Amino acid sequence: MTEEELRRLIDSIPPPDGAAAAKTRMRLDQLTKPQGSLGKLEDLAIQLAAITGDPFPSAERRAVIVMAGDHGVCDEGVSAYPQEVTAQMVRNFLEGGAAVNVLARQARAEVVCVDVGMKSGLDHPGLVQRNVRRGTDNFARGPAMSRCEALMAIGAGVRVVDDLAERGYGLLATGEMGIGNTTASAALMAVLAGVDPGEAAGRGTGLDDEGLRRKIEVIRTAIRANEPDPADPLDALAKVGGLEIAGLVGVMLACAARRLPVVLDGFISCAAALVALRLAPAAKPCLIASHLSAEHGHRRLLEELGLSPLLHLDMRLGEGTGAVLCFHLIDAALAALKEMATFDSAGVFRRDGTA
Amino acid sequence: MTEEELRRLIDSIPPPDGAAAAKTRMRLDQLTKPQGSLGKLEDLAIQLAAITGDPFPSAERRAVIVMAGDHGVCDEGVSAYPQEVTAQMVRNFLEGGAAVNVLARQARAEVVCVDVGMKSGLDHPGLVQRNVRRGTDNFARGPAMSRCEALMAIGAGVRVVDDLAERGYGLLATGEMGIGNTTASAALMAVLAGVDPGEAAGRGTGLDDEGLRRKIEVIRTAIRANEPDPADPLDALAKVGGLEIAGLVGVMLACAARRLPVVLDGFISCAAALVALRLAPAAKPCLIASHLSAEHGHRRLLEELGLSPLLHLDMRLGEGTGAVLCFHLIDAALAALKEMATFDSAGVFRRDGTA
Repeated sequence: MTEEELRRLIDSIPPPDGAAAAKTRMRLDQLTKPQGSLGKLEDLAIQLAAITGDPFPSAERRAVIVMAGDHGVCDEGVSAYPQEVTAQMVRNFLEGGAAVNVLARQARAEVVCVDVGMKSGLDHPGLVQRNVRRGTDNFARGPAMSRCEALMAIGAGVRVVDDLAERGYGLLATGEMGIGNTTASAALMAVLAGVDPGEAAGRGTGLDDEGLRRKIEVIRTAIRANEPDPADPLDALAKVGGLEIAGLVGVMLACAARRLPVVLDGFISCAAALVALRLAPAAKPCLIASHLSAEHGHRRLLEELGLSPLLHLDMRLGEGTGAVLCFHLIDAALAALKEMATFDSAGVFRRDGTA
Repeated sequence: MTEEELRRLIDSIPPPDGAAAAKTRMRLDQLTKPQGSLGKLEDLAIQLAAITGDPFPSAERRAVIVMAGDHGVCDEGVSAYPQEVTAQMVRNFLEGGAAVNVLARQARAEVVCVDVGMKSGLDHPGLVQRNVRRGTDNFARGPAMSRCEALMAIGAGVRVVDDLAERGYGLLATGEMGIGNTTASAALMAVLAGVDPGEAAGRGTGLDDEGLRRKIEVIRTAIRANEPDPADPLDALAKVGGLEIAGLVGVMLACAARRLPVVLDGFISCAAALVALRLAPAAKPCLIASHLSAEHGHRRLLEELGLSPLLHLDMRLGEGTGAVLCFHLIDAALAALKEMATFDSAGVFRRDGTA
């Protein structure tokens, strides 16, 4: 994808459908409950109407897109796990044994696993092959990738959404696998949100105190070495981001352009969302924050995005696990909208005095 | 139920099964994820094992018990809705049109609707008839009910659980309907937790500022008039509580005695839990807090109970709506426990260095 194609994609993002949202709100206010008392479930129903343009939206066919990539910065000892685990876990996803597979099955969602930047290829019929390069370079010593490669990885995410949309998917979620990717995410947050690396970085999959200190130092070094431009999200993404993160940026922008709701998982997905929204603020109405993870910087990152998470489960696994749990809440919101009785049909007293 | 029978029920509550919990924890630590990274989902699986004594618990047959009662204190103008709405909404529950019906269907749960203290009876084959008296008295002027009536209402809740347990239900949730019952709940919280009524009381289904001021004043008056004993939970329940709240106390104590997990809904259910735990601290391991509601005092009440809610949805509807949403998370926790691959079976690198 060229910079010009990216610009066209961003310019094609339609505004939310206020008329559909208003119809949904009107219906919700006729249902047998105090107005607004279903809280964020009502907000979800209205948001889905605004995104899709359908006052009674449905979200039957759904998938979680798990983008996989490797990180050269692992050479600096920023993760509790070796890089080989990326490919091992991707194989686990493809064989259906990981947490995201189990939770996706329970939420009637498919797991779509994409190699955007794995270090070692994997020959499996279930893996969507979109590899841009075999892992990033160590961004403590130079840029993670070129601007052109970042654009290609975004384009890979766009193509995945295009394929799924053509096959009738109406609700997507983001997930990822990439040992080292909380470091890249924290670096992006530090650059784009102007947050100190000590506030942005956390323990990831389980760093000890010494590992966390090293990780923070590596991010400081990377920012000094690369001088990413906070006003140029693509520059930051290329210099201190990751291939799977870039892929997720593409997923989010394509969803916004195609009026598809997209549920964000945890810290890494939200770092991708930060890049996506700096590129395209108009994408925001399509984004749904699923959960507040246990990763240190996630609360602050959600505030920066202006999103409020629905689940508080202290999860810190990634993969899309928090996002697919949120599908149950979306189902609940749409079921309430469509199946509840109205004051009139149930003969229940209405606040304004009519029966 | 006599005071002696209540004492025997409380004494019969078994301790949690530490051996089953340890087996569950060991299994969770073999699954392909960093230890503990599924956060509260792992806690839920372990808690269910500890409650049931089964390291691989199941929760297939489940119900939400909706206790209904009326409140004499409505005469003081403490609710945005007239008392008739209690019966109208109970009819709506029985006909399947309320929010709790829709959300329970989606979570494969039955709605069990119980008249513990409705003002006007309702002749419907689906309604469990356990009426103790036709609404409480106005507790701004004297006790809501007698100590004996509070015990009978607790006994009604116990019988409902006994019936469901005999029919094979393995997971229960609490819900309620009773115009005015946030006032009774706030009064119980004020008395038993020593919290100022201004901190305990909220807007309920939608009081304006003037209504909220009146509600707080009514609670102050009620406490002055009745002098409930903070060290005697039954005394507080009888003097400033409610019949459906007492019924929920019985549900919780019976669940604890029968090793059944019970998911608490919002503010009113948590007020009942406060009474239950003051009567029987041993019941605590059976309780699961589902959501943080928008009702003003709920956060403080959860802190008082030492429980941490899973869902942050700003809901304020009651009925058991938040509790049944939590069933999806319990299903997710148990599915992860039972269906995920282990490090060994998937050939994924384990943190301790073994493959």
